[in-house]
Amino acid sequence: MDVDGLVAVHEISTLKYRYLRALDQKDWPALERCLTEDATATYGGGAYELGSRAAIMAFLRDALGRTSMLTSHRVTQPEIDMQGAGAATGTWALQDMVVDVEHGVTIWGAAFYTDHYRRVGDDWLIAHTGYKRTFEEIFPRASIEHLQLTAHWWDTGGRSRLGPPAT
Amino acid sequence: MDVDGLVAVHEISTLKYRYLRALDQKDWPALERCLTEDATATYGGGAYELGSRAAIMAFLRDALGRTSMLTSHRVTQPEIDMQGAGAATGTWALQDMVVDVEHGVTIWGAAFYTDHYRRVGDDWLIAHTGYKRTFEEIFPRASIEHLQLTAHWWDTGGRSRLGPPAT
Amino acid sequence: MDVDGLVAVHEISTLKYRYLRALDQKDWPALERCLTEDATATYGGGAYELGSRAAIMAFLRDALGRTSMLTSHRVTQPEIDMQGAGAATGTWALQDMVVDVEHGVTIWGAAFYTDHYRRVGDDWLIAHTGYKRTFEEIFPRASIEHLQLTAHWWDTGGRSRLGPPAT
Repeated sequence: MDVDGLVAVHEISTLKYRYLRALDQKDWPALERCLTEDATATYGGGAYELGSRAAIMAFLRDALGRTSMLTSHRVTQPEIDMQGAGAATGTWALQDMVVDVEHGVTIWGAAFYTDHYRRVGDDWLIAHTGYKRTFEEIFPRASIEHLQLTAHWWDTGGRSRLGPPAT
Repeated sequence: MDVDGLVAVHEISTLKYRYLRALDQKDWPALERCLTEDATATYGGGAYELGSRAAIMAFLRDALGRTSMLTSHRVTQPEIDMQGAGAATGTWALQDMVVDVEHGVTIWGAAFYTDHYRRVGDDWLIAHTGYKRTFEEIFPRASIEHLQLTAHWWDTGGRSRLGPPAT
Repeated sequence: MDVDGLVAVHEISTLKYRYLRALDQKDWPALERCLTEDATATYGGGAYELGSRAAIMAFLRDALGRTSMLTSHRVTQPEIDMQGAGAATGTWALQDMVVDVEHGVTIWGAAFYTDHYRRVGDDWLIAHTGYKRTFEEIFPRASIEHLQLTAHWWDTGGRSRLGPPAT
């Protein structure tokens, strides 16, 4: 690994982070700018196969567009391999959680992503993203009595309604 | 991005990690050394505004001082932008969990931090930290029947009381 | 910190990520290749002390061998310190979750790892790994009514059985 390799790993990682922040903030134009036009995606551990950037964007806007569905996608543990100067693959560990206020369910799980990246001009872009789940679970929010949402990116502007921690 | 940039990103990231480890280990002197004297903080997604290092330290010691309140703050997905040679901003994704044994509640949530960093002598320090929550939830621990704490940093010295996993 | 230091931090981090991926994917040969022959480990926050690579491998195969035990180990927040050219120590923040389908329990927790790394030929290897827990909890899965596993690395090939999110 040399300096050019370190810089590429840094730029590819930052791309992945921007993509995931856009996903959780439902910032669809920012997310679209992370993808090549011919990008492909496999979501749901293989349940959904999408063949273009346009198809990915339509899927995400439809599946995650509601602000009553709050999502947290957290990746760690990148293993980035350069495939020549303008291409790379990456493995990441995902931990995610979805709080669906409207449908009254919570989903959480763990997975490993396998991505492909491509250099286009001065930028790294995602050419393929997909993951395979270690596990995924769903439960009705009513099953945890008195479970209470105390902050919401859109409804409370991200501010907590909890009082100061009792000391 | 050049080598100097990579080094700065590394040093700023390590600063953030030291701050968060000090927070979860309640090592207040170590945490204080991460902050500029005029550091400001916004906690609770905007619920608390603190205007100096002394005010931040007083708040944290008061809010999180009890060892019956066990916290886990985990950040990923840094997007660090240099603002000249001695200043930088950073966005991080947070996932946190609080187990409050005394009050019998668990709190967990997700947020995005926006920080400012400043170089002082040879060190990077935190000049501002704050976050906005995607979601935050609280529930009484009694709502999950037979939920049992099996390790505690202070009460068991961090050692698990679980037997070996059944095979 | 210079370029050589950055490269070492990168290589050590990637080693840690490969070790944890092997752990969650139960890829024991890949995990074994991450360890020095005289590697030692402390698991369970001090509950288990293992004195060699062979002992570590026997413990992990026995404790985590079942595919009915799904694990997610996620580390963040590395603080790597070089100890000369061929040795280093590292602190990491861990967040882990175990879904034990067979025994009907879920375990989750938070901890801080302290590792030792050693350079052997061209590779960094783990010479010691161990952690101390901030907290750890266990609960019967039946305590969350209608909690349902919807993906499983081995039983569903990592694919989700959930329908598309309702929109």
